[in-house]
Amino acid sequence: MDAIEQKKVLVLNSGSSSLKYEVFSMPAKESLGKGAVERIGEAKGTLSQSSPRGTIKIEEAFADHKHAMLRVGQALVDPAKGILRRIDDIEAIGHRVVHGGERFASSVKIDEDVIKALEDNIELAPLHNPANLTGIRESELLWPNVPQVGVFDTAFHQTMSPTAYLYGLPRELYDKYRIRRYGFHGTSHRYVAARALELLGRKAENTNLITCHLGNGASITAIEGGRSIDTSMGFTPLEGLMMGTRSGDFDPAILGFLLDRGYSPKELTDMINKKSGLLGLSGISNDLRDLEAASDKGIRNAIEALDVYAHRVRQYVGAYMAELVKVDAIVFTGGVGQHGVRMRERICHRLENIGIMMDYDANRADGSAEGLVSQAFSPTAILVIPTNEELQIAMDAYGLLFP
Amino acid sequence: MDAIEQKKVLVLNSGSSSLKYEVFSMPAKESLGKGAVERIGEAKGTLSQSSPRGTIKIEEAFADHKHAMLRVGQALVDPAKGILRRIDDIEAIGHRVVHGGERFASSVKIDEDVIKALEDNIELAPLHNPANLTGIRESELLWPNVPQVGVFDTAFHQTMSPTAYLYGLPRELYDKYRIRRYGFHGTSHRYVAARALELLGRKAENTNLITCHLGNGASITAIEGGRSIDTSMGFTPLEGLMMGTRSGDFDPAILGFLLDRGYSPKELTDMINKKSGLLGLSGISNDLRDLEAASDKGIRNAIEALDVYAHRVRQYVGAYMAELVKVDAIVFTGGVGQHGVRMRERICHRLENIGIMMDYDANRADGSAEGLVSQAFSPTAILVIPTNEELQIAMDAYGLLFP
Repeated sequence: MDAIEQKKVLVLNSGSSSLKYEVFSMPAKESLGKGAVERIGEAKGTLSQSSPRGTIKIEEAFADHKHAMLRVGQALVDPAKGILRRIDDIEAIGHRVVHGGERFASSVKIDEDVIKALEDNIELAPLHNPANLTGIRESELLWPNVPQVGVFDTAFHQTMSPTAYLYGLPRELYDKYRIRRYGFHGTSHRYVAARALELLGRKAENTNLITCHLGNGASITAIEGGRSIDTSMGFTPLEGLMMGTRSGDFDPAILGFLLDRGYSPKELTDMINKKSGLLGLSGISNDLRDLEAASDKGIRNAIEALDVYAHRVRQYVGAYMAELVKVDAIVFTGGVGQHGVRMRERICHRLENIGIMMDYDANRADGSAEGLVSQAFSPTAILVIPTNEELQIAMDAYGLLFP
Repeated sequence: MDAIEQKKVLVLNSGSSSLKYEVFSMPAKESLGKGAVERIGEAKGTLSQSSPRGTIKIEEAFADHKHAMLRVGQALVDPAKGILRRIDDIEAIGHRVVHGGERFASSVKIDEDVIKALEDNIELAPLHNPANLTGIRESELLWPNVPQVGVFDTAFHQTMSPTAYLYGLPRELYDKYRIRRYGFHGTSHRYVAARALELLGRKAENTNLITCHLGNGASITAIEGGRSIDTSMGFTPLEGLMMGTRSGDFDPAILGFLLDRGYSPKELTDMINKKSGLLGLSGISNDLRDLEAASDKGIRNAIEALDVYAHRVRQYVGAYMAELVKVDAIVFTGGVGQHGVRMRERICHRLENIGIMMDYDANRADGSAEGLVSQAFSPTAILVIPTNEELQIAMDAYGLLFP
């Protein structure tokens, strides 16, 4: 029966001040445990890890990613509550990498050439790619003989045509700086798209999907025959849907208006990324639950922020409906997509006219569970699917290294 | 029979370096002649006027709008080729005003209070409103006893809900600077919407329309029951569709990226307004005919620019389809919308799936003429309607002053 040998695959997501990890047994897709180091470089950081053998929590100053990685190595093999018996049990490592630029249209085994390419892409993702590279280098030190795979947020969207990825800007900006739409959250969109095919019992080649990843960041993707043909995030993860603290789309001329009034470029970048979105528009919170509570009390700014959020999702659904010849299913995932029962209802409420007919009872009853929440007669199915980017990274690493 | 007394209404469109005018006999809606002064303030300007009595062309330096207005007054009553016998034949004047802010949701008779409000709106339209105000003041000097009406590009869109007009930006930007979506081209969208109702034999209250004004500037509006509920231009006329030289939507974070690389705010404003769009992306021309000729020769940049243009119109059509419960007709107007036979085809080619089915033969055969270009079985009709903002302004002025 159990003839396939299971391999332990470590998934690493190294951010600017955090290091998240999870260990999978593959191809069983079984999570053996996971953890995170937060606030690296600050006076007080934390490492927390949980697995069936127990939880570990450490508070200390993690000077840098090297320090954090050493502690992760120790926690992984903690005699009492560790995830592994020996550090060498890891046979493959998968790294989340934010920006693959135009070079990477799929996950790749990491070698010197790939590392060079990631360094070349730092300009495109100055906050994320250096942290991802640090994660790769540190894990090479800790696991010098274990093969590593890079899985890119942008890769899934490299199938977009120039029609979808070119901006209406002078072409030399593309030629010189590669300014174009890249799209992000690709690993999540790809994961839930594949899962949707399983749930629908369909094949990729005759199925079109719209996948809505609504989390703290939010993006939406049009998928035709398994390929991303358009997505709402662009050159950076700012564009597209309104998010928790990111503005999403707005008239870019507003920035010139504000520069004229004394705002600095840095203030504006900070504002549109960290002080906008649900938080900025409501003036209350970036958390959907807070806003729904405030909206129940009739607080206008909260109601308007929720309405704008839903409105913009609907607009993109409509835009992608026009791009796809037909749409078999729309998928909700991400924190808001999976758990935001009322937001899903708010979004779908006026989409009946374009063939997206929610079963409101099923939507409420199923809550956060995976499954169908559309009417049986809806031309377009509506699915809720919890995303699992870590598992997708483990699947990619395993698939590439043990074909 | 001809019991209604006809009034001569002068329509003035005073731009930063131009002054356009047309005289209508109302309510007959008959144009008696029109003209324009171009390149005011430059070393050599022109005044050209045409009417059934002949054409006038003057080349000279027009120092300012006052000078231009005096020359217009002379040309209007030119003994040989003038439009009027006496300057006092004008009984009403209608002015195009770009920005009415949140104050004006319809056309208004101009008084001191209105002029004060326009002055308050200069911040919102620093290039246009001062020129519009100059036109009003100069025509008050020339026609001191003739009532004047202001017709605003923004007014038609004041029916948008906060859900449509709020950006995902900090609310204080709205509270302090009134930063929101305003929309423009309102006079054109309103004119063609009314004409569409006549052609369709329908009433406003049970009709939903999507009107596409595709000219050198371009915008698209969702009209529900006669009211604009959403439009693609925003705080400024930059946002939305890609245009001749304006970028339309792009990831606003790109501006920060370019500021970091030494571009000045002024260069960027200039670039996104004057060097982008069809011109910037193709590197060839902002004129559709040039690009279609280049695309026939297989020049890739031209083909891509045309494809991106059409793609973005389709996306907005889809977005507005999702907003409107049903769409009875989509209307094409503006230079590109009226004359761009191949662009209309390019846009509609993949909209069949959302019920917009072009009759390609009719589209080609009718060319620039007013009429239906959809299949008889198309759920959504497709109409080509030449716009006439000047006539709409005359209608508004006449309607307000001679009710």
